Amino acid sequence: MEHSALWLKAQPLSGCGIRSISIVCTDHTPQSSAAVWELRSGLTELFPKVAFVTGQADYFVKMKVKKFTSPESYSVTSDENGAFVTGGSGVGILYGVFALLRGLRLGGLGRFSESITPSQPLRMLDHWDNLDGSIERGYSGRSFFFRDGELLINERTVTYARLLSSVGINACAINNVNVRDGAQMLITEKFFPRLSALCDLFGRYGIKLFLSVDFSAPMSVGGLATSDPLDREVQAWWSERCAKLFRRVNGLGGFLVKADSERQPGPYAYGRDHADGANLLARAIAPYGGRVIWRAFVYNCSQDWRDRTTDRARSAYDCFKPLDGKFDENVILQVKNGPMDFQVREPVHPLFGAMPNTNIMAEVQLAQEYTGQQKHVCCLVPSFCAFFRHETGRGTVSENVCGTAAVSNTGDDFCWTGSELAAANLYGFGRLTFDGSLSPERIIAEWCALTFSDETARRVIAEILLRSHKAYEDYTAPLGLGWLCKPNHHYGPDPWGYEFDRWGTYNRADRDCVGVDRSASGTGYSELYAEPLANVFGSPETCPDELLLFFHRVPYTHRLHSGKTVIQHIYDTHFEGYEQAKRFAEAWKTLEGHIDEQTFANGSERFAEQLRSAAEWRDVINSFFHRLSGIDDEQNRQIY
Amino acid sequence: MEHSALWLKAQPLSGCGIRSISIVCTDHTPQSSAAVWELRSGLTELFPKVAFVTGQADYFVKMKVKKFTSPESYSVTSDENGAFVTGGSGVGILYGVFALLRGLRLGGLGRFSESITPSQPLRMLDHWDNLDGSIERGYSGRSFFFRDGELLINERTVTYARLLSSVGINACAINNVNVRDGAQMLITEKFFPRLSALCDLFGRYGIKLFLSVDFSAPMSVGGLATSDPLDREVQAWWSERCAKLFRRVNGLGGFLVKADSERQPGPYAYGRDHADGANLLARAIAPYGGRVIWRAFVYNCSQDWRDRTTDRARSAYDCFKPLDGKFDENVILQVKNGPMDFQVREPVHPLFGAMPNTNIMAEVQLAQEYTGQQKHVCCLVPSFCAFFRHETGRGTVSENVCGTAAVSNTGDDFCWTGSELAAANLYGFGRLTFDGSLSPERIIAEWCALTFSDETARRVIAEILLRSHKAYEDYTAPLGLGWLCKPNHHYGPDPWGYEFDRWGTYNRADRDCVGVDRSASGTGYSELYAEPLANVFGSPETCPDELLLFFHRVPYTHRLHSGKTVIQHIYDTHFEGYEQAKRFAEAWKTLEGHIDEQTFANGSERFAEQLRSAAEWRDVINSFFHRLSGIDDEQNRQIY
Repeated sequence: MEHSALWLKAQPLSGCGIRSISIVCTDHTPQSSAAVWELRSGLTELFPKVAFVTGQADYFVKMKVKKFTSPESYSVTSDENGAFVTGGSGVGILYGVFALLRGLRLGGLGRFSESITPSQPLRMLDHWDNLDGSIERGYSGRSFFFRDGELLINERTVTYARLLSSVGINACAINNVNVRDGAQMLITEKFFPRLSALCDLFGRYGIKLFLSVDFSAPMSVGGLATSDPLDREVQAWWSERCAKLFRRVNGLGGFLVKADSERQPGPYAYGRDHADGANLLARAIAPYGGRVIWRAFVYNCSQDWRDRTTDRARSAYDCFKPLDGKFDENVILQVKNGPMDFQVREPVHPLFGAMPNTNIMAEVQLAQEYTGQQKHVCCLVPSFCAFFRHETGRGTVSENVCGTAAVSNTGDDFCWTGSELAAANLYGFGRLTFDGSLSPERIIAEWCALTFSDETARRVIAEILLRSHKAYEDYTAPLGLGWLCKPNHHYGPDPWGYEFDRWGTYNRADRDCVGVDRSASGTGYSELYAEPLANVFGSPETCPDELLLFFHRVPYTHRLHSGKTVIQHIYDTHFEGYEQAKRFAEAWKTLEGHIDEQTFANGSERFAEQLRSAAEWRDVINSFFHRLSGIDDEQNRQIY
Repeated sequence: MEHSALWLKAQPLSGCGIRSISIVCTDHTPQSSAAVWELRSGLTELFPKVAFVTGQADYFVKMKVKKFTSPESYSVTSDENGAFVTGGSGVGILYGVFALLRGLRLGGLGRFSESITPSQPLRMLDHWDNLDGSIERGYSGRSFFFRDGELLINERTVTYARLLSSVGINACAINNVNVRDGAQMLITEKFFPRLSALCDLFGRYGIKLFLSVDFSAPMSVGGLATSDPLDREVQAWWSERCAKLFRRVNGLGGFLVKADSERQPGPYAYGRDHADGANLLARAIAPYGGRVIWRAFVYNCSQDWRDRTTDRARSAYDCFKPLDGKFDENVILQVKNGPMDFQVREPVHPLFGAMPNTNIMAEVQLAQEYTGQQKHVCCLVPSFCAFFRHETGRGTVSENVCGTAAVSNTGDDFCWTGSELAAANLYGFGRLTFDGSLSPERIIAEWCALTFSDETARRVIAEILLRSHKAYEDYTAPLGLGWLCKPNHHYGPDPWGYEFDRWGTYNRADRDCVGVDRSASGTGYSELYAEPLANVFGSPETCPDELLLFFHRVPYTHRLHSGKTVIQHIYDTHFEGYEQAKRFAEAWKTLEGHIDEQTFANGSERFAEQLRSAAEWRDVINSFFHRLSGIDDEQNRQIY
């Protein structure tokens, strides 16, 4: 299936007289071979008529390994005569080459230098791909890793590895954390040859392959009677299975596990805790340098909506905080950015900073499950950036994590991400986790410049992207209220669709008040934070407006820091969010002729749908709160 | 697959000395052959050691054809020596035999006589079975008519024909009105042999076979460019296809059509009306005595919830009333009992009595889509009875129809209907349409006596059945409000799940009022009725409480004829409905040992689920209205 090269496709650099290039690389790892290949093909795109020579040339690139803080570090210095690229290893050289090519494409042959050690050691993509080719929460076509139960490796896989590597992503879990319908068997012999080939391919690009595994594999795969992590037979089974797997699939990174969550099996079934569960797997794969990434997304998904004491937001903290220090060294706890589930606005997860003796990584979602499903434009880079820089009271989030995984937004669409604009999220996620000092504006400008050749297009699209998240939040989720979407598929408004259900997702709105009291007087959730956050979140007087209804239950007439009442804020943001969506759609129209037809059509279709849907969100949410509160809009706009 | 014989299975009659029986039948149609067979096997069950002789015997049955009002009429006179059965045809004899056997089983050899002409000429079951074996809105297993694209005929089919015939059902459409996924091809040669065999089998039992057809078959089957009913080529195509079909499938009853409804194709696509559409098919099948049953369930299923003028309840009337007199003689318009869609409480459809120059039949739903999905007990016989006897202002409903179709509640479960108690609905539907003079109490007592041998079981179950509909209505749908269920699957409460959607299904509740104004001051729907109904429904003062919120929008403090306020009525019925469900479950428990284990387990499981679900309905609906109204329960019961 045809696919775009996204930000990797380059235009020739005009106005330079380079006819010959010499490339010298003194490292001979698979990664530096890939670096040389990338460099040659990248330079060929920039200088189409160039000849590669040994010895004297118009332009040179010299690459070598040097001692750095990290094998992934690199340094690039470049001017009109050539460039020096050094890396902490072949991988560092490869990253340096991608940086050099980016520098040339963005700035031409001008003087440029860059020396970087990755901010986060583990920069990962999690695919929720199923073996039949479907993708859970996928909005970009079908899986390009699986079809009809088979693992695919083809040209698209190569391009994908190149795309990831070019933005510094170094790990990838290829199958859904809900391990079902045959995916349990990925750790068996049948899949070893292809897994091994994929590991090699990924390895050349500095990417570690991970597999999501079924915690109850001793039963589902091994036919044992139990999966109890303290059972000797179970331990022996995992050891034996992993020995076979890791010896054959050389370089496999390890396992990703969703246990005891949303009906996935886990250690609770045997009265064990999650350290027992994670360490079981960790010990089986430690001999091979493997790591276990254990998801902290554990909560009661059969809650009774009548129960106002159980708080889903607390559950990961309550479950994992007592286990701090009990996980083996090669276990990493993967904690979602917020305590619920990738809502458009959530407070930072209270586990960040709270488990100093545990390896923690963050999990964010590129797949726009709750943020418009790649029909609405919603650039997540600024909120990722704010999240990483968020002060937990024990350092920033990024200081507290050893990495971040993002649920992938890709599929086998030509443009990979459904909406062509959603590729900015994939690009930005990689760039930001690699170099946490980058500003969202810089990253978006980079992506626009690499993707579009037209100046107007770059400017208009960057502006849309930078404003898109606020617009989406405005017309969907006021003041930190989540879960106003339709159940199951999560698209479009249904403000009480999750209200009387079992998922712990309530807004508790009535004719007088709205919001959930998670302060000390309520579920006590706000107390889980370190100071000063506990104090800030704990009172409606100090809680930021944008999270007020997440933490507090207040009357519609409660006055925000902005000076507006809650109800007027709801009306205003919903009207304004829609207007903004309309401006986006209008701005997009002006790009006809500035961008290629396929991209223009892709955006036009999506902006039309966003506009329709934004009107629906505006009207349903406004009507919902007007019916409850009975308070009219101060500006007398139409509420149905 | 094993299956129950339901009410056909008999216990031996004790204490009678009959050893020989003589049977004489002077009619020799396939139907009277079936009658003789039924009689012999029925009498063998009643008198297990009996010998059938010619000439002198302890007991005789004489059967013959006589002139009656209808070929389906029959007369039975019976005493301890024997019985005379006369029928208007072989079919009448068959019905007479079933009546005789029923009489013997219910009353023994005592004197008994019955002479009946069916109240409704067409008594039909509509199956919503798909060719892959799934059943739309099926709650009793898979289809027994179709599997993997093939039409099935086996022992179960025979039992089914016997069951239907035994209660007087004389027509059956075997495939879903949504004609998809290969069902378009049922009218093609591939299916002729099996259809023909099924027609024969059904025919022996006096049942006409109908097929649901795709209005756009000229395109989907014939490959034409249009399905325009006024197009000559289209007309010719239908004529030719029907000639082939009806000549080969002898005795086929005709077609059932859902057109221009919920995205099914129809005449509107060509700017034609529904008379054009129906007559197209009617003319193609008239030469073979075929009839077209055309559904009146036509409405805008992409309504805007903001629009308060469009009223789904009006749509069938507005669409079809102007066409009165324009349909061919062999067209029957099939009109749902109420104007919406089989809600637990709806007013009678305004088309009944409004189209004196059109053949009208009614459509009711045995499949408990909106009435507990055969998990909740909900006996529909009393409401069917009330519906048929309802005065439209131009005669009762039954006086205005030529028949009634029921959406079937059967599947390939052992007990046919998911819940064993739901078989009472199937039984009752047939009995009531055959003999409209029967009371619901009598019908339920009959079914209980034919199904259960234990006196306590009969009494307890009859009592549960008779109270079940009120209980279900109480805890689900107050005062004629429908659509409080979860979208799509329609099980469990979600009071605003359909409120901001496109289906025309709104309760318009806010903090002050609830209900839809369908009076002259609102959508004008109440004006569609003949007097006195227009007047009665048109004012909240005269509108029956049970339909108040269907027709009117009133404050929560509005006082009902019962003396209660609307809000207090909602609370009271929801608490009481749940208590009733609890009493049902408790009563069922007392039947352990009185009924067979399988039946007891079937009921126990369902009553437990009903109780859980009834609590959910009670609490969600009460909470919903309490959050909106802010008015407390007078009795201070728990509202969450």
